[in-house]
Amino acid sequence: MKKISLLGATGSIGIQTLDVIRAHPEEFELYAMAFGKNIDKAVPFIQEFKPELVVVQDENTKQKLSRHIDQIPILCGSGGLIEASVADPVDVVVNAVMGSIGLPATLKAIEARKVIAIANKETLVTAGHLVMEEARRHQVELLPVDSEHSAIYQSLNGEDKKDIHKLIITASGGSFRDKKREELEGVTVEDALNHPNWSMGAKITIDSASMMNKGLEVIEAHWLFNVPYDQIHVILHRESVIHSMVEYVDRSVLAQLGTPDMKVPIQYALTYPNRMELPMTKQLNLEEIATLHFEKMDMERFPCLRMAYEAGRQGGSMTTVLNAANEEAVQMFLEGKISFLEIEQLIENALEKHSRIHNPDLPAILSIDEETRKQVRFHLN
Amino acid sequence: MKKISLLGATGSIGIQTLDVIRAHPEEFELYAMAFGKNIDKAVPFIQEFKPELVVVQDENTKQKLSRHIDQIPILCGSGGLIEASVADPVDVVVNAVMGSIGLPATLKAIEARKVIAIANKETLVTAGHLVMEEARRHQVELLPVDSEHSAIYQSLNGEDKKDIHKLIITASGGSFRDKKREELEGVTVEDALNHPNWSMGAKITIDSASMMNKGLEVIEAHWLFNVPYDQIHVILHRESVIHSMVEYVDRSVLAQLGTPDMKVPIQYALTYPNRMELPMTKQLNLEEIATLHFEKMDMERFPCLRMAYEAGRQGGSMTTVLNAANEEAVQMFLEGKISFLEIEQLIENALEKHSRIHNPDLPAILSIDEETRKQVRFHLN
Repeated sequence: MKKISLLGATGSIGIQTLDVIRAHPEEFELYAMAFGKNIDKAVPFIQEFKPELVVVQDENTKQKLSRHIDQIPILCGSGGLIEASVADPVDVVVNAVMGSIGLPATLKAIEARKVIAIANKETLVTAGHLVMEEARRHQVELLPVDSEHSAIYQSLNGEDKKDIHKLIITASGGSFRDKKREELEGVTVEDALNHPNWSMGAKITIDSASMMNKGLEVIEAHWLFNVPYDQIHVILHRESVIHSMVEYVDRSVLAQLGTPDMKVPIQYALTYPNRMELPMTKQLNLEEIATLHFEKMDMERFPCLRMAYEAGRQGGSMTTVLNAANEEAVQMFLEGKISFLEIEQLIENALEKHSRIHNPDLPAILSIDEETRKQVRFHLN
Repeated sequence: MKKISLLGATGSIGIQTLDVIRAHPEEFELYAMAFGKNIDKAVPFIQEFKPELVVVQDENTKQKLSRHIDQIPILCGSGGLIEASVADPVDVVVNAVMGSIGLPATLKAIEARKVIAIANKETLVTAGHLVMEEARRHQVELLPVDSEHSAIYQSLNGEDKKDIHKLIITASGGSFRDKKREELEGVTVEDALNHPNWSMGAKITIDSASMMNKGLEVIEAHWLFNVPYDQIHVILHRESVIHSMVEYVDRSVLAQLGTPDMKVPIQYALTYPNRMELPMTKQLNLEEIATLHFEKMDMERFPCLRMAYEAGRQGGSMTTVLNAANEEAVQMFLEGKISFLEIEQLIENALEKHSRIHNPDLPAILSIDEETRKQVRFHLN
């Protein structure tokens, strides 16, 4: 029986993780569960799974929640997230919180030598060098939950990383893939949230539309698999059937395919190195799909992807800035405060203004993160 | 340094195996080399690679060859093949002879606990139960060289076979994939030899046109991977880019992709579990290929595939008959003695006439093989 601590339980990945846990009551138990403020969503889950520990974002939410549940301790804030990540009985920490707020808990979970299923790509983008250094030091492996990185992880199973020639990350293209740049002027939040293949949270869906999501994935792949940026390739693949690929030195390419269902990579991270039935997921039917398309990725059309490669290659604190500026700009777009094209403009400005720090430590990263967010907000408010 | 014994050196797989050996002189050495009668092709290879032992088909060829080379012992016939397979210094036996003649040498190589790279699918079709039983007993793993089986083998790397839900073997469709059955009446040997994707030997190219090649591969996969026929699926995939796939119990599908170059699976079998550079092979370029197609396989259109499934499910001596009748009928087609559609007719007749033996031993198999060939020849001569 694996005891799971789920950070970000009311988000899209969190809910699907609960689906997987529910499907295998003999294998998995929810030990701890953290969420932000969404009490309405959380209470039924707490009642169903009866975790030993609940963590919420702030004291106010804690007060409200305590009216609904008793007998389960409630913690709050970053300290609570850490508590849920390092608690002795926990075997696997699923980090599915949104944004760089997941970073300190990840570092502490590594120190406590937990198995970490990482759905929070911002953690690696903002501080990949710290996270991977800690992982190496404590000999902890990070199991990716992102479908692309899970695909690469599965395609690397049994292989030697030194034989990698290239990672090929597929991109569906997001909601605006068929729009020209000039057509992006007037797009609305609603347009952007309409992803062609995947049903996901708001932030990642906007990131998909801007192609920043693929940029963050490139940086995440760089850290997870220790592959230089020149050997990470992005290809447009509308159907999202091939979730990503690894080309080896002998020209052999391994790929993982499937229907667009996040429960597959979530469960793989929970069962790794084994697999388990997942009957609620649709089987891939290539005869029905009939055609798969591949196109060259256009860096001019998608400047966010270009900026991510550039920030990644420059390294140091640049990706911290990239991530913080993007998180803040996307939030402002969702709040109706800026237009879609202003997202990339704000990120570009933030990157230009920043003086790179070579090897930032955690306090430096947290302060750069905060500073960047303020600048981005301030600039247009 | 791995010492290699290459059976079938002047055929298509043999020549490409020599290409791979030539590319890695620091890794591989040709210890023994067997071929049929093609002295003109063989002599330059013997002079280049200077094997310790040469095997030819018969005494007559041995006499002729001995005028070209000296200082290298020459053996002949089935005894020679066995000698080359079990010789002490040999690390890897590449069995790339054509037809069921490869069987006794494979069994002896297993007994001698050699690593076996098997490009001779007829061996497994004709006597899969014996070969796999011997392999289990001596704990020898057979490394497939067929591109489809190598793809499955690579997709299984690091995985547990009990997690296999389905094998998905891709089929290009062969030279006649766009012809209706009624259009097959007048096709010539030349038409049949014109494969759209792969450049291979004559027998396998005809087998591709009749779809028997895919049938033999289904049976081969059944034995190699110990998967029931109901879980082996064939799908039409014109581009031959995905070489085959494995669907796991969690709906995750792993696939191996590449350009149509047999040197990749050949080298993989020689370097397994490692990989090595293969610079002479073209990289897969999906952006250039742009589109991959998948279609349902039509068992009415390709009766040879249906017969292979049926013979496989019936088991025992049925696949021995299937293989022998096919080998003989294809030979007769190549000799201009029968039409293309008569190939399947002769096989169907042979299967109908045969009374299944449940668990034939080697002498029984060899005699059924001989008997079937005679019947097929006799029937129309």
